[in-house]
Amino acid sequence: MFHGEYVTRHTRGFSDVHDLTNDIQAIVERAGVGEGSVTVFAVGSTASITTLEFEPALVRDLAEALEQLWPRTMRSHHSQTWGDDNGFSHLRASILGPSVVVPVHGGEIVLGTWQQIVLVDHDNRPRERRIFVQVAGDAQTPGAV
Amino acid sequence: MFHGEYVTRHTRGFSDVHDLTNDIQAIVERAGVGEGSVTVFAVGSTASITTLEFEPALVRDLAEALEQLWPRTMRSHHSQTWGDDNGFSHLRASILGPSVVVPVHGGEIVLGTWQQIVLVDHDNRPRERRIFVQVAGDAQTPGAV
Amino acid sequence: MFHGEYVTRHTRGFSDVHDLTNDIQAIVERAGVGEGSVTVFAVGSTASITTLEFEPALVRDLAEALEQLWPRTMRSHHSQTWGDDNGFSHLRASILGPSVVVPVHGGEIVLGTWQQIVLVDHDNRPRERRIFVQVAGDAQTPGAV
Repeated sequence: MFHGEYVTRHTRGFSDVHDLTNDIQAIVERAGVGEGSVTVFAVGSTASITTLEFEPALVRDLAEALEQLWPRTMRSHHSQTWGDDNGFSHLRASILGPSVVVPVHGGEIVLGTWQQIVLVDHDNRPRERRIFVQVAGDAQTPGAV
Repeated sequence: MFHGEYVTRHTRGFSDVHDLTNDIQAIVERAGVGEGSVTVFAVGSTASITTLEFEPALVRDLAEALEQLWPRTMRSHHSQTWGDDNGFSHLRASILGPSVVVPVHGGEIVLGTWQQIVLVDHDNRPRERRIFVQVAGDAQTPGAV
Repeated sequence: MFHGEYVTRHTRGFSDVHDLTNDIQAIVERAGVGEGSVTVFAVGSTASITTLEFEPALVRDLAEALEQLWPRTMRSHHSQTWGDDNGFSHLRASILGPSVVVPVHGGEIVLGTWQQIVLVDHDNRPRERRIFVQVAGDAQTPGAV
């Protein structure tokens, strides 16, 4: 069975990181799934989903590492053509990727102790970002493993 | 229920980008799925799937950004060992990743307005590339959200 | 139907690559699935899953390419704050991503001839790494394609 919901976040851009873990666990519980998986997908071409130890120093490291590879001041054909100055945002988003799939086991998302599911918004302006969360699984039963 | 099909594309390599969105939406419709997800997987170790605003300037930016990080002229143990000169292709493919999973909601793939599902073929020669598209979901019903 | 199992690997860190393909094919067979998909997820915030042609020269190329981008000696806020010196491991893991989803077709995982599913452990020390493998699919039937 399948159960989908949107989550939204107000974002500041420039690889702004938001922890989605609690929202996703709550959606898995509303879905009533025991064994399955959850797809977390950032709607739009300038944001990514990944996992990260969500702590402030590492959040800063990630933004700085992306700034070093594809800086906000970089020249791009996209920005020159369309004048929206966010070519760097698109590159960061496409290379990190728009989605992650996380297993669900015994009614819980399977994550490490210091592993969170995060949205990274790379755009060059504040946005209200939508994330679609799709749960697939069996109705809740004791885990088979 | 599950429904899988191959899609093929003639590619030129060197991070050649192809829009797969219409093919994937058509497969979702043939599957008759309302709520679910679709896995798009590039068969082979020198191609990737991601999402991108599919417009010519950004397509050029992506290829140039990858060329800057892992240029076609780079020395690699793989190329030196096997003589096929595509070590850079493998690195680009493995770091971007071979697949993306996109939610399906109300019979439609969930995407932003300027977000397309793309194949990026990194090999160093023309190929006929195969992509496997696997749809999972409920039979079509009005969306639950 | 869904079937999940853990796989474990003793890893050395610094983007140590392990081939998981045979373990995953065996789990798909135990699940008895014909058409579906398999989610392979690295538990923890310093490891990744991707596909790669698993041969020694390319394994070395991947580790060297990551070392060049985010070297083990790099300064990071994470390492300075927590003293665990593995900021580079977290960056490599989050940018490559923790999971991959591979289609299953006719009871077999869909892969290219030289394409394997690999764990890449980026941590800065040996670990016993756990990977969760979740199979989703129909009970075995002749492939629909």
